[in-house]
Amino acid sequence: MRAAVMYGAGDVRVEERPDPRIVQPTDAVVRTVLSCVCGSDLWPYRSMPAGDTGRPMGHEFLGVVEETGTDVPGLKPGDLVVAPFTYSDGTCDYCARGLHFSCRDGGRYGSDGVDGGQGEAVRVPHAAGTLVKLPVSADSALLPSLLALSDVMATGHHGAVTAGVGRGDTVLVVGDGAVGLCAVIAARRLGAERVVLAGRHEARTALGREFGASDVVAERGEEGVARIRELTGGVDKVIEAVGTRPALDTALGAVLDGGTISRLGVPQYEQAPFGRAEFLRNITLTGGACPARAYIGQLLPDVLDGTIDPGRVFDRCFTLGQVPEAYRAMDGRQVIKALIRP
Amino acid sequence: MRAAVMYGAGDVRVEERPDPRIVQPTDAVVRTVLSCVCGSDLWPYRSMPAGDTGRPMGHEFLGVVEETGTDVPGLKPGDLVVAPFTYSDGTCDYCARGLHFSCRDGGRYGSDGVDGGQGEAVRVPHAAGTLVKLPVSADSALLPSLLALSDVMATGHHGAVTAGVGRGDTVLVVGDGAVGLCAVIAARRLGAERVVLAGRHEARTALGREFGASDVVAERGEEGVARIRELTGGVDKVIEAVGTRPALDTALGAVLDGGTISRLGVPQYEQAPFGRAEFLRNITLTGGACPARAYIGQLLPDVLDGTIDPGRVFDRCFTLGQVPEAYRAMDGRQVIKALIRP
Repeated sequence: MRAAVMYGAGDVRVEERPDPRIVQPTDAVVRTVLSCVCGSDLWPYRSMPAGDTGRPMGHEFLGVVEETGTDVPGLKPGDLVVAPFTYSDGTCDYCARGLHFSCRDGGRYGSDGVDGGQGEAVRVPHAAGTLVKLPVSADSALLPSLLALSDVMATGHHGAVTAGVGRGDTVLVVGDGAVGLCAVIAARRLGAERVVLAGRHEARTALGREFGASDVVAERGEEGVARIRELTGGVDKVIEAVGTRPALDTALGAVLDGGTISRLGVPQYEQAPFGRAEFLRNITLTGGACPARAYIGQLLPDVLDGTIDPGRVFDRCFTLGQVPEAYRAMDGRQVIKALIRP
Repeated sequence: MRAAVMYGAGDVRVEERPDPRIVQPTDAVVRTVLSCVCGSDLWPYRSMPAGDTGRPMGHEFLGVVEETGTDVPGLKPGDLVVAPFTYSDGTCDYCARGLHFSCRDGGRYGSDGVDGGQGEAVRVPHAAGTLVKLPVSADSALLPSLLALSDVMATGHHGAVTAGVGRGDTVLVVGDGAVGLCAVIAARRLGAERVVLAGRHEARTALGREFGASDVVAERGEEGVARIRELTGGVDKVIEAVGTRPALDTALGAVLDGGTISRLGVPQYEQAPFGRAEFLRNITLTGGACPARAYIGQLLPDVLDGTIDPGRVFDRCFTLGQVPEAYRAMDGRQVIKALIRP
């Protein structure tokens, strides 16, 4: 089969790889129908040291089950499924409490002999615990929004849930990438009355407004904080969807004492400024890697009935052969999120 | 009147100071019946640069209202009251949401012309919003436990509340000082089934067991973490009642993915290790300076009916003249918490 492999910063190639096959009785092989490029794929795209050993890329996909092992209850060839961005057994103590990202026997796509999602097919370990069957056909117009449940929409929801967003709240979302935009949807869905979106890319913030953002703040740094405070008087709940220290600083500047900052962007720092001042202010830091598998079932009905349409974050479609171009377009911010049809 | 004043590390003096009097219509003057030394008083006791300008000490006290301004509804001379460790107006947006520590017009004892609690009397600003009337007489045996509501018991409760402690939980309390011991009471009071107390001072951990700790871990560092994990398999909720980086590291080592660490000890660091690893583990950092005023009413009935007796943390009583000795005894860990009868 053909699949995307990264060999170093800026170097993504589409090449021939072994066809996936069942290895464990709990495996399924899924023929990919839709995949995409993640904002987090851009971190290695900008920094991975060049080498001879490529890394299969992609962790968001939706497809048709082609084959199952002998221990995959509930799934059969022909089923259309969406995969959360990590696999998980669905039975350990972490999965039982809805923290599938920390599954004792789970893992990531693209490593340990498991295929990446940006290819023609994927061997999915712990298929019964991981994949979610979709009640639509493979030519449904809802597919992009269903694919968004794999990562970005579930992640936005994780931010709103962990920030404790509820009816009537004012929420700040820092970052206008696909996750930030989905966090706008999620905050509104949980009842937020006002959502301020901090971002400066007009095409993105325009979509953010359509998703329900009441205000957009394009200024950054202290100026951005001043503008948010002027608009809101400070906010109780912040969803930080970037992962940089300046984004965290904006969150800390805008949040009220006693407020909560939920992080969705993978931190590009090791130490966070949570010392005496933040203690005296009773600031809570929460969020983290999303247990997407825990949320897909909750969000699915709203996608199926059109209440939310997170698939709109996919603003350009690429073929598998065009994946290198898709990375360039995402990296250059020419597209919000690149859809891939293998 | 006589009151304790700190002039530098190790230098606490009891000296003559002006008698407090009403300055604002919202003031009350309280004649102190009981006061005490706080663990946080030991930070300046160990580090304050020597100088000529002394700092009145103490922020926990209980006493009899001697005089009120013209705008102190609900209080009259003769009332026995307990003071939360900061004063607050009770009317601003922060007070309205129970975050009295962040009161827009509040402040601390011992600064800005307000007396400290370790003295014969105190002018209390915003007396109606601050003081809580006690339905006992000034010779009640409950007085030490009622004084504990001023800070340590309220603070322990803040840790249990912000950590989200509930029925059946296993909770780790790091630190066997008065706050840690009160956190044990608070965690059990909110339904924790098992409370592991990390501390190595036998007199303190013995009291911790009487307060409801199921296990005591005296080991520190990696050894302590290994012991806690061996006992519990890891914990969901940690109350960190020390404030040092090693205490935070113990909390991070013992907490399960998806768990919560609530800080009660004033951080003696500016940066906390909350980077990529803690993000991937979905660790929440919460807690902070306790809004004691918000909790006194909740905890009072349990003190009055003897359900909890946090006053047992006061294991030695000193006169006002003995305050320097009280600091030495606390600093040398010869007493858990020093009670002062002016």
